[in-house]
Amino acid sequence: MPTCDAARVLRDLTHLRSIGAYETGVHKPALSPPHLASIDYVRAELAEIGHRTVIDGISNLLGFAPGAGPRLLAGSHLESQNYSGWLDGPLGVIYALEAARAIAADPAFAGRGVDAAAWCDEEGHFGSFLGSRSAMGEVTDAEIDAARDRTTGLPMREALMAAGYAGRAREVLDPKRYVGFFEAHIEQGDWLEAHDLKIGVVTSIVGITQYQVVFSGAQNHAGTTRMAIRRDAGLAAAKMAVALNDGFAAHCGPKTVWTTGNIAFDPGAPSIIPGRAVMLFQMRDTDRAVHTRLDAVLRRLVAEANRAGPVHVEVEVLRQTTPAAMAPTFQAAIEAAAEARAPGKQTRLPSGAGHDAQILAGHMPSAMMFVPSIGGISHHWTENTSDADLMLGAQIYVDAAARILQAAG
Amino acid sequence: MPTCDAARVLRDLTHLRSIGAYETGVHKPALSPPHLASIDYVRAELAEIGHRTVIDGISNLLGFAPGAGPRLLAGSHLESQNYSGWLDGPLGVIYALEAARAIAADPAFAGRGVDAAAWCDEEGHFGSFLGSRSAMGEVTDAEIDAARDRTTGLPMREALMAAGYAGRAREVLDPKRYVGFFEAHIEQGDWLEAHDLKIGVVTSIVGITQYQVVFSGAQNHAGTTRMAIRRDAGLAAAKMAVALNDGFAAHCGPKTVWTTGNIAFDPGAPSIIPGRAVMLFQMRDTDRAVHTRLDAVLRRLVAEANRAGPVHVEVEVLRQTTPAAMAPTFQAAIEAAAEARAPGKQTRLPSGAGHDAQILAGHMPSAMMFVPSIGGISHHWTENTSDADLMLGAQIYVDAAARILQAAG
Repeated sequence: MPTCDAARVLRDLTHLRSIGAYETGVHKPALSPPHLASIDYVRAELAEIGHRTVIDGISNLLGFAPGAGPRLLAGSHLESQNYSGWLDGPLGVIYALEAARAIAADPAFAGRGVDAAAWCDEEGHFGSFLGSRSAMGEVTDAEIDAARDRTTGLPMREALMAAGYAGRAREVLDPKRYVGFFEAHIEQGDWLEAHDLKIGVVTSIVGITQYQVVFSGAQNHAGTTRMAIRRDAGLAAAKMAVALNDGFAAHCGPKTVWTTGNIAFDPGAPSIIPGRAVMLFQMRDTDRAVHTRLDAVLRRLVAEANRAGPVHVEVEVLRQTTPAAMAPTFQAAIEAAAEARAPGKQTRLPSGAGHDAQILAGHMPSAMMFVPSIGGISHHWTENTSDADLMLGAQIYVDAAARILQAAG
Repeated sequence: MPTCDAARVLRDLTHLRSIGAYETGVHKPALSPPHLASIDYVRAELAEIGHRTVIDGISNLLGFAPGAGPRLLAGSHLESQNYSGWLDGPLGVIYALEAARAIAADPAFAGRGVDAAAWCDEEGHFGSFLGSRSAMGEVTDAEIDAARDRTTGLPMREALMAAGYAGRAREVLDPKRYVGFFEAHIEQGDWLEAHDLKIGVVTSIVGITQYQVVFSGAQNHAGTTRMAIRRDAGLAAAKMAVALNDGFAAHCGPKTVWTTGNIAFDPGAPSIIPGRAVMLFQMRDTDRAVHTRLDAVLRRLVAEANRAGPVHVEVEVLRQTTPAAMAPTFQAAIEAAAEARAPGKQTRLPSGAGHDAQILAGHMPSAMMFVPSIGGISHHWTENTSDADLMLGAQIYVDAAARILQAAG
């Protein structure tokens, strides 16, 4: 079996943590200098083992193994959310790098190989899974032309220009070339930790439906406008948030989650009745039927609110991703690898977060493996995983990748 | 009786509207160049009729009538809310100016006079009723030192310096010198218009209790955090807004109003459970007992929320003003003046908005008179009143001021 060097994995992750460090995490937005420096570091490591490396026109990093035999595509992303954790993304890239190294170094695997990828912008600074979608031929130039950094407003074209990747071709991969795709990630929840488990074998990745709900009332003076004639958009939005929470609780699946991430009151002043309020509401479930059922609940509540008045409510779907099932044979391979290293310490579970693997799953068999998150925290700079869990995870990831490649003949 | 020149009133108001014009309203924040130019215009008009004028160290404009007989203090404010209406404030200043003119010109009123005032910053750009409170000896230098423009953050000291008023003494008026204070204002509500009335005789000015309610939960990933373990501060705030609305409706007085002006979700992102939310909630009533009763309702709901968890709720009173009753003899004088000019077209009503008169009422008999607001709109640049109503209001204001001075002997 290929040999994982877990200490080397820790060294790589620690080095990436030092690039764009913020508190105990990192601030590494897509195409920012720390993101670009991280790409360069991994590129050099891949070149070191004889992989042909490419940083393409959307800043996807790809490392192609030599040889003509079966190959596994593996990786994740290197950029972070703003002021966020050090493992969300880099863990999966470095595990893939280590699998590529271990398999390249094992004569028994001659001809077979791991192609490693660091997809650009999984975190959605400029768009939705732009890097992995680009590699699967799902992104047009027009989409990139229109993309802007959600924090700074910088056009993606300008960011690519500054990075030096403008004008390069974008690599579109041929799915038929691959056995499949394999991504590791921190759990970002507390299930593994709470149950003293070490490995999560992902069964499916949630689909997300992201709504914007706009409430249109009448702005007026909070002292002189009688309660009876008010059209308070803020109050209508608060009522809707409560009604959605109750309605979804009554009709959800066992693992559905839903969130009102924001309600923006306009103008939001102490003595003015809000004339307008904009709510961001989303739901996640691995079952498409649950999305359909809950969408109907939302539409019913909105229709009821519009019938009752006095505030007008409009719903728009901002984003919708399809739930993605993970390949059963790959799940079995991860499970077997985990049982061999840590018997009884693995479980199957769905992913509540979106990942590049859900894009790849539309084109080739795909799999995901989770390691524990301390306290279940993620998308915050306190995000962490113990060194022991990081090293055990790397071992099992390399073993599972080897099992998947072996099964391919 | 002193003679009101209603055309002159329209001319003055129209001129003030042209200073800092925005759409059909004005943008005239306290101590901004258009506010200062407005003060200068009114100062010159007061000087024209022989008043001794002062612009003091907080930019209060005062015009003192000559003579040693009974005198009435009269006025309002000249600055506006941001991008707001043209009458909220200037109407009361120009009516006072006209009363000062008409009474100065009437030999029958020799020795008696109207002292006119334009109080700085009734709209609260820098603080709460700073101008009228300063004139009543209620403002310390330390309060001015700490005051900053709520929009720009500019320290009030710097704004006063730029205006040229830094270092001047602040005028503190002796209440015993006055028969009382008389302020005119647009209604800012739709009661007069809806009932085809022309004059509102204010019985009392509401007290305002402004709360800040802070919800502290736990920020986490909106996809990976199970519903059962969430501590969603945004949802807790929405529930509280609905519970406050229901609870206040059950225990309010006949004219109580209450408003959730804002809920700020932190961080307010679509895929992050809000860890913190800050709500601005206020109530207004002319009856102090209603404030006490509803404060108890709010405290009970907060205590219930804290017992139920999982989000911690804390309440702070940001601001509290005392309801102010208007002088009964002045109300009778306004009523009689209105009946003489427009029989059956006046009503008594409370003021749902705060006004400088509530500050003055703590020191001397005070009165307020309303003219209709078209559509009840205020604090918006579409605020307006018909020319006919503006002119009728001026007539009745001058008559009422004369009646009040006559009654003083």
